[in-house]
Amino acid sequence: MSSAAPRPADPDHLWSVEEHLEDVLATVRPLEPIELNLLDAQGCVLVEDITVAVSLPPFDNSSMDGYAVRVADVAGASEEFPAVLEVVGDIAAGLASSLRVGPGQAARIMTGAPMPPGAEAVVPVEWTDGGLGEGPVTGMPAHSLVPEGAQGQVQVHRAAEAGAHIRARGGDARSGDRALDAGTVLGPPQIALLAAIGRGTVKVRPRPRVVVLSTGSELVQPDEALADGQIYDSNSFALTACARDAGAIAYRVGAVPDDAETLRSTIEDQLVRADLMVTTGGVSVGAYDVVKEALSHVGDEDEPGSGVEFRKLAMQPGKPQGFGTIGPDHTPLLALPGNPVSSYVSFELFVRPAIRTLMGLDDVHRPRTRARLVADKALTSPAGRRQFLRATVSDGSVRPVGGAGSHLVAALAQADALIVVPEDVESVEPGTEVEVVLLG
Amino acid sequence: MSSAAPRPADPDHLWSVEEHLEDVLATVRPLEPIELNLLDAQGCVLVEDITVAVSLPPFDNSSMDGYAVRVADVAGASEEFPAVLEVVGDIAAGLASSLRVGPGQAARIMTGAPMPPGAEAVVPVEWTDGGLGEGPVTGMPAHSLVPEGAQGQVQVHRAAEAGAHIRARGGDARSGDRALDAGTVLGPPQIALLAAIGRGTVKVRPRPRVVVLSTGSELVQPDEALADGQIYDSNSFALTACARDAGAIAYRVGAVPDDAETLRSTIEDQLVRADLMVTTGGVSVGAYDVVKEALSHVGDEDEPGSGVEFRKLAMQPGKPQGFGTIGPDHTPLLALPGNPVSSYVSFELFVRPAIRTLMGLDDVHRPRTRARLVADKALTSPAGRRQFLRATVSDGSVRPVGGAGSHLVAALAQADALIVVPEDVESVEPGTEVEVVLLG
Repeated sequence: MSSAAPRPADPDHLWSVEEHLEDVLATVRPLEPIELNLLDAQGCVLVEDITVAVSLPPFDNSSMDGYAVRVADVAGASEEFPAVLEVVGDIAAGLASSLRVGPGQAARIMTGAPMPPGAEAVVPVEWTDGGLGEGPVTGMPAHSLVPEGAQGQVQVHRAAEAGAHIRARGGDARSGDRALDAGTVLGPPQIALLAAIGRGTVKVRPRPRVVVLSTGSELVQPDEALADGQIYDSNSFALTACARDAGAIAYRVGAVPDDAETLRSTIEDQLVRADLMVTTGGVSVGAYDVVKEALSHVGDEDEPGSGVEFRKLAMQPGKPQGFGTIGPDHTPLLALPGNPVSSYVSFELFVRPAIRTLMGLDDVHRPRTRARLVADKALTSPAGRRQFLRATVSDGSVRPVGGAGSHLVAALAQADALIVVPEDVESVEPGTEVEVVLLG
Repeated sequence: MSSAAPRPADPDHLWSVEEHLEDVLATVRPLEPIELNLLDAQGCVLVEDITVAVSLPPFDNSSMDGYAVRVADVAGASEEFPAVLEVVGDIAAGLASSLRVGPGQAARIMTGAPMPPGAEAVVPVEWTDGGLGEGPVTGMPAHSLVPEGAQGQVQVHRAAEAGAHIRARGGDARSGDRALDAGTVLGPPQIALLAAIGRGTVKVRPRPRVVVLSTGSELVQPDEALADGQIYDSNSFALTACARDAGAIAYRVGAVPDDAETLRSTIEDQLVRADLMVTTGGVSVGAYDVVKEALSHVGDEDEPGSGVEFRKLAMQPGKPQGFGTIGPDHTPLLALPGNPVSSYVSFELFVRPAIRTLMGLDDVHRPRTRARLVADKALTSPAGRRQFLRATVSDGSVRPVGGAGSHLVAALAQADALIVVPEDVESVEPGTEVEVVLLG
């Protein structure tokens, strides 16, 4: 094991939730960064400081559709006594122009177009007659339909100060400014900024690839017929959805029967596309718990960084858990119990933080809060086990849903929170303030 | 236009934010539902009530690894005076078994395996000698390694009540129970439940396909060299990321030059993959605003449901906006202004709700809150315009970031909220409570 956390030597040691989590997070390392196209990097963590290479905007440009003028030419202009200027042509955004604005002249200019030499301000088209000689206008006719709009005379009805309606070069960001710091999570506004300063690719930690497989000879895929003693595989679907929700690219392998050799070869096959592997079932004390049986033999046994350890946790649900690394790349593997609620709670507590650690995020845990218990009777919890109960939370109150049985998946679909009952508490009266994990 | 909202007749009418939003949401309809595989339906809205077809669990089964016994045979058993039973064999989950448990007999049984006829309770393996005759054990040896574990005698150290450690058929959900209601958003727990009850596909509203294109002859793709008068295209990246963030499948077309014919043919080409189309730029009063010029000619002009209307909104940024439907399927199109901050704010206020309406979600808007303004000086806002200012919010306080200029994309990357300054307010003093849009 390549774990940095000290391991209790006693194989019968009952691990606390914190000890197990600490072991997982001490072993899992953020993925190596790669250069990704901007939109492929959405939701990822930047690993480089980004500096502005070209000032934004890169040149003085007009913030309005209007006329580029010299300040002296429009001084004192009014609708009654307009300034009359000669229009020397159009300056459109992105079209090359060699126009200059001399005394008594104006250039018709579009939003975003570069200011022509000689001009000191822009007057919006609504402050002019638009060249029509008939009072104020509300806009310009399309150049493609009325090309002569770029010629003749224009009457300007208001004065303009120097710099009016001009976006100055570097007014948004200057060359050399820090645009984004390493560690920033790239959402839409950060992607906007990176594109705006010309960055088409960035170095980020990629989304981890998570392979999810459930084990159990009793498992049948949904939409298939159930024979006696069979149930539907739900864990592989649930945890694949959970892994995506946590930010991963998840691959659902589905159910593997309780045969150690089949499981071992399936895991070895899947390793090539896994940054993290999650199994469910087969981790307890039964005679057919093949995950436990198979996983001590996966990968290079002589390699010190390889091996999966099975342990008991002081929690309910989720007592039996396996964790370690397998294969030549020491890929982390979490072996969760098979009960649907146990595997779901285990995912939230241990796998989600592992995925978010692989992504390089600072914030790896679900948020927690405190809320007042609303229930018909006291909650009971086994001594020495930390209990996680499905619940709904709103307005500072939390209500348990469904029973404590770990097979009650129906109630899980109603829950948006988990009530945490500490190890040393065996009973919680209604009205007590309790700790709550918010499931997003 | 297929809008249900009454339209102001005056073409110079200044639209309020509410009028424009109401027009958009009255026109956009939820997409037709389709049957999707469970994991493809993640995040989508269910349109059918789901009933449990087969009880969950479908049969009485063991909740522990242990021994299935008759209650009378273990009555009064203790470690000192164990009950000694004949082991008739193993019952593993998912493996067919014809075992019966008669008087004086026990079957070794695994978690999830069906209860054999004759047995009334399960005693966990930790309450037995595991068949080894050497006191309590902590688990079973793997069957593949020690097949004789399923034979011989077992000593049971504790009594068990009828039904102990048995999960009763239907204990989680009964055939005919309502599992999920139409309108439920499918997250991981709902997917878990659907799989558990055997549903491999469900009828949901699909994610909308959103085509994003920016317009402007001045736009260059990131990583390309900038010539004079050119800037980088950031809107197509930003809004594609925003659309995904809202739940859509987004296609970035990139920048189209300011030529009406090119724009028209690009939009007509893209229509086939669009449930919603978003353009940026070219909607104002300039002579080269080709979106405005082109869009009255897209699609069938004789079709009453087609047409895009351009209007002025009483807001800042985001005054010029276009909205309508185009093409044979009356595909909604929102034409946003071209300034990066204007287009981003317009997306949040109008496009995001449209996408979420297409998805059939109830909750289409960003959440809002109230917070106390923290600033060095009063905020100023133009009379008659609703202003949206980028800001950061925490602990009930909100601080503006960057200036009011709509080109200040750098500040946008720091913001997590928008301050809303109403139309009739021209100045907001520090310490005033203001309305805030939370950007997630």
